[in-house]
Amino acid sequence: LVAWKKSVIHTTTTLDLANQSCPIYLGTNIYAATKLLRAHIVGHQVMVVTQEKIAEWYLDSLRKALAEYQCDIIFLPEGEQYKTLLQWQKIMDYLLEKNHERATTLIALGGGVVGDITGFAAACYQRGVNYIQIPTTLIAQVDAAIGGKTGVNHASGKNMIGAFHQPQCVITDITVLDTLPQREYIAGLAEIIKYGLIADAKFFAWLEQHIAALLARDKNVLLQAIHTCIHHKVAIVKQDAHDIGIRNILNFGHTFGHALETIGSYESLLHGEAVAIGMLLAAKLSARLNWITVTDSERIEQLLCAAGLLQTLEFPPAADFLRLMRQDKKVLGGKLNLILLKTIGQAFKTSVTEQEIGLVLEKYC
Amino acid sequence: LVAWKKSVIHTTTTLDLANQSCPIYLGTNIYAATKLLRAHIVGHQVMVVTQEKIAEWYLDSLRKALAEYQCDIIFLPEGEQYKTLLQWQKIMDYLLEKNHERATTLIALGGGVVGDITGFAAACYQRGVNYIQIPTTLIAQVDAAIGGKTGVNHASGKNMIGAFHQPQCVITDITVLDTLPQREYIAGLAEIIKYGLIADAKFFAWLEQHIAALLARDKNVLLQAIHTCIHHKVAIVKQDAHDIGIRNILNFGHTFGHALETIGSYESLLHGEAVAIGMLLAAKLSARLNWITVTDSERIEQLLCAAGLLQTLEFPPAADFLRLMRQDKKVLGGKLNLILLKTIGQAFKTSVTEQEIGLVLEKYC
Repeated sequence: LVAWKKSVIHTTTTLDLANQSCPIYLGTNIYAATKLLRAHIVGHQVMVVTQEKIAEWYLDSLRKALAEYQCDIIFLPEGEQYKTLLQWQKIMDYLLEKNHERATTLIALGGGVVGDITGFAAACYQRGVNYIQIPTTLIAQVDAAIGGKTGVNHASGKNMIGAFHQPQCVITDITVLDTLPQREYIAGLAEIIKYGLIADAKFFAWLEQHIAALLARDKNVLLQAIHTCIHHKVAIVKQDAHDIGIRNILNFGHTFGHALETIGSYESLLHGEAVAIGMLLAAKLSARLNWITVTDSERIEQLLCAAGLLQTLEFPPAADFLRLMRQDKKVLGGKLNLILLKTIGQAFKTSVTEQEIGLVLEKYC
Repeated sequence: LVAWKKSVIHTTTTLDLANQSCPIYLGTNIYAATKLLRAHIVGHQVMVVTQEKIAEWYLDSLRKALAEYQCDIIFLPEGEQYKTLLQWQKIMDYLLEKNHERATTLIALGGGVVGDITGFAAACYQRGVNYIQIPTTLIAQVDAAIGGKTGVNHASGKNMIGAFHQPQCVITDITVLDTLPQREYIAGLAEIIKYGLIADAKFFAWLEQHIAALLARDKNVLLQAIHTCIHHKVAIVKQDAHDIGIRNILNFGHTFGHALETIGSYESLLHGEAVAIGMLLAAKLSARLNWITVTDSERIEQLLCAAGLLQTLEFPPAADFLRLMRQDKKVLGGKLNLILLKTIGQAFKTSVTEQEIGLVLEKYC
């Protein structure tokens, strides 16, 4: 078990929306800080949703911090293939079995899958209850845990069933990353690099300088990187909580990435790994269409490589790839809507012909 | 088939909330008015959710009015016992099968069960899409279709899974009531009487004068009654959309009523019939606790009787009744939270000892 050390909140970033305000605490040893939790729990009941592996490391401390509440625990199986209505229903059943009231608080202790299902359970239990996000993966800390997107996958597509439901707060603790396997840690770097690409050229350059320190998990560099990502995510979600405009740019690399994930049935590639390849392809396409320079597309490829991404470049045949991309996004007159780069640090939505996409894909597939 | 006649919107009442504004149109021959529908449909796709019996009368006209859209139809089985996650999932599957996009609009053509499931499907499909309510029962027109409460039942309780999700508009057409069986029509009168009891003494007195005309379905009296109910429902929901305060008073009679429905497994009593008995018991209890006078409780009993309600007074043993009421609502120190009457026209939330409730129940059970 992790010995308990002094809790330090390094930064607090607040996501202010019309109806609600969600603080995102970034710190060390804060995931089981009683005061912090208590400040965001209304009733006398909580239910922690987690997974066996995570629980092994962190559940005991969290449970102790929640000693004053009726605290029920439910475990989800590992993996994106379990982000299903069935698992969501199990949470519903258990909440009812344990007589949870409208004043209950759900606590998601885990990565993106745990956070998304828990948030969706909170969105629908008795027409909406509170929940708290404690993301335990780097990718969830910089992306999924912030912004209130919740949901599950359907056989026909990712996140097809869900809701927008903001958590009461997000507790982002870098100490819980200590037990994160290196492959998953690296996958998280993909989404960090994404913020540099879509919104912050200076941050991209800073990442080029600090990628070795990040890979070595230098605490100060990591805190600065995560803080910058939280800052950008919050700024974007604030402008467009329901993802009908600017928030779309967060999908940079994701249309390509989703196609790769679908081919692998969510098993062979981690989400971040698929997004990294997707960002590479989107960058190459942006260069081909004369938005960014070839030099810039090479800088992007180099940073992704230096981060340890792009190790598993398994490409399907270009035709299969395109077919899957067509399923993910609406095709209008043979064109696909994609997020591309105008420059490093600025993304935009555009429509590209399947032919242009095909030419880039064929170079790699 | 119903011959098509001139559409007349008699009144428009708008439910204004922080994020959204929902007009409630009350009129004659408006359920399939193309202009009205078109004004509230954004994309090029709609899915009508309905039931066989209703479809027989009204689907063809509605379909014609929607000729310009991709219009898919899905049928739900009849009855509260089918207000389940399974039926909700069938809608999700069908939306995906027919490639409905985020800009789609669901249309609920039916009573409360259809409206509640459809609204919940709209709340969760791709994290929320638009929907339109076309309530075809009196009870849905004056209650369920207004206010954005959506959801399904769980084996452990009514409406345990759901969301608050406001429709784009509600199209309340009294002509569709022409085919409503008298028993269901009468059940709707229970909720109409409820508004008089909880919020409007003058309306209660007006109902005493006009109950015969209402039973005979006099169009003008019916329009006036429904309009008054819409007005009160909107005023209450406006103050408390998420049902954490004043909106509770709409549950007058419902804690008793839910217990009766549970005993009958939602089959022997219609919801309105159960609520009518519940209101009678709540009124008797209010008199017993010296809030309303015995004369007032007799006026209430007389109006419910005159409306044709209270015909099937099948009471379970008082002890069973109390046990079920305990399940529906939280018990604190042997007391149950209930909505009672201070006077005719004014409801309030209070906690009552089980003993007091038992004394009233024993008189009837």
